[in-house]
Amino acid sequence: MSVILTIEETAQWLKERDNFLILTHRRPDGDTLGSGGALAQGLREEGKTAYVLCNPEATQRYIHCIEPYIAPDDFVPEYVISVDTATTDLFPPNAAEYIDRISLCIDHHPSNTLYAEYTCLNATRASCGEVVFDVLMSLSACISTETATRLYIALSTDTGCFSFSNTTANTLYVASSLVDAGAPNQEINKVLFRTKTRSRIMIEGMLLSGIDFSFDNKVAIASITMDMLAKSGAGEDDLDDIAALPCSIEGVSIGVIIRELTKNKCKLSVRSNAPYNARKVCEHFGGGGHDLAAGCIINKSISEIKELLKEPLQNSMEQK
Amino acid sequence: MSVILTIEETAQWLKERDNFLILTHRRPDGDTLGSGGALAQGLREEGKTAYVLCNPEATQRYIHCIEPYIAPDDFVPEYVISVDTATTDLFPPNAAEYIDRISLCIDHHPSNTLYAEYTCLNATRASCGEVVFDVLMSLSACISTETATRLYIALSTDTGCFSFSNTTANTLYVASSLVDAGAPNQEINKVLFRTKTRSRIMIEGMLLSGIDFSFDNKVAIASITMDMLAKSGAGEDDLDDIAALPCSIEGVSIGVIIRELTKNKCKLSVRSNAPYNARKVCEHFGGGGHDLAAGCIINKSISEIKELLKEPLQNSMEQK
Repeated sequence: MSVILTIEETAQWLKERDNFLILTHRRPDGDTLGSGGALAQGLREEGKTAYVLCNPEATQRYIHCIEPYIAPDDFVPEYVISVDTATTDLFPPNAAEYIDRISLCIDHHPSNTLYAEYTCLNATRASCGEVVFDVLMSLSACISTETATRLYIALSTDTGCFSFSNTTANTLYVASSLVDAGAPNQEINKVLFRTKTRSRIMIEGMLLSGIDFSFDNKVAIASITMDMLAKSGAGEDDLDDIAALPCSIEGVSIGVIIRELTKNKCKLSVRSNAPYNARKVCEHFGGGGHDLAAGCIINKSISEIKELLKEPLQNSMEQK
Repeated sequence: MSVILTIEETAQWLKERDNFLILTHRRPDGDTLGSGGALAQGLREEGKTAYVLCNPEATQRYIHCIEPYIAPDDFVPEYVISVDTATTDLFPPNAAEYIDRISLCIDHHPSNTLYAEYTCLNATRASCGEVVFDVLMSLSACISTETATRLYIALSTDTGCFSFSNTTANTLYVASSLVDAGAPNQEINKVLFRTKTRSRIMIEGMLLSGIDFSFDNKVAIASITMDMLAKSGAGEDDLDDIAALPCSIEGVSIGVIIRELTKNKCKLSVRSNAPYNARKVCEHFGGGGHDLAAGCIINKSISEIKELLKEPLQNSMEQK
């Protein structure tokens, strides 16, 4: 069983150790890469040796967060730390050799399985970046521009630029501190939240034109086929947060995106508005996540999945 | 000439007086109505009599900010205060009797003409709401949930939910304080920033599917036909700020929306990213506006207008 550490204990734990390797999660987002890069930078500023394990799925959008800290092949860490990763299933394949020896996990997911020897978990935070901020403030009482930039990316991406329902007073307070510390929020916001690629525009156009409404228009289901991806040229980056789209339609309580990965394998992304529960829909298929944002993989075709969704959606609409 | 007051002097000025009427500006947005309502609420909590002058152009979206404070017809104010209003031209017609006797103006516009007897101006703030927050904190050192809710609407709408380039560390800090004070940011964000009507979703789907790119993809032109409006059922409200869409595409410098009003009459909305000039494109057709956002009416069909646009677009691409 994992030992739960407070923020101060985590800072102390880091202070007493050295030679860290930081792991991020598969399909890495701004929160895991921003948190990982910020932690590496903050530890280095304290004189520590800290690297981030290369994440083979990191995209152009966020890879700059960890690029300066990528571990060389011959680095032998003493301590392995994971950030923003609820379970060991979520690590990329190249992390396999480390998953049985993770010393510290810093996370904000309530579903964290406490797989690490020590865990610093604050499930009230919207982003792991906020937890890393608290740890680094406890460790050194100051945040450099390099660290602030990465943490701002972590916070802003996990909260849709502070618009998602997970945004708290703490999120906004930390964001304010990060901008004060030099995080270039104007440039980051312009790139991440106020610009869309042509591929994104094309995929949104196709997706919005084909939404299925059901359950008295309270459920909206949209599909992203391999054909749509090919036509639009959309890659991972272009699909960022696209799962939120169906659920942003007036009157919709549960929004589903079915994304075709191969002919008979799809990724389901479910979003809901409280009190409706997205996680329960995904748990029906062995997936999980947060109450209002969850996902799973299903080895079926899009049309089969639409059929299979009826039961868990019915249950979620009734249970709330 | 107006006497410039500090935040503390403004609070003191208010403390020593009573019977206030608060004016908001024409085409009222969340900042002016949120600031006006918050100021009225904050003053009432200090035992003052404070009303907001009815704003005939207030829409459903924001009118609730001022509704509880609307001045009765027989209210005779001792002091008239304006919020978020840079010049006296910007008051609604029903404010005419007051524009020569405005005692205090609280604003954040650098273009403020100092028309009031006393002015509390902080042009470094993204929203007037931030200035009102400072004044109320100086006045009473606490912010009620009612006040916080209105100020959160002021801040978030003037900054595009903290994503526009005007967002500062102060904006985020004040927002954090407002959420702490009970502003329901989840509900407000959901309604103002994360909900689209089905008609809006449909019109966006059609619009995004038919964008024409030209000038090496630096120009994006989209059309909204009468047929698209009929199919989607989209009304004026559903088209709010849709003109910004083509210009938000990566690499696009000038974005144009041609909206069919009748068979041979269209409204052109042009947006540009600096240094490209949207106004010059519209002036070619007798229209006008701001450098980065302009419009005009052209008595031609969509296809004719696309042809006619080539010359002014060519000029704008060359001149910047």
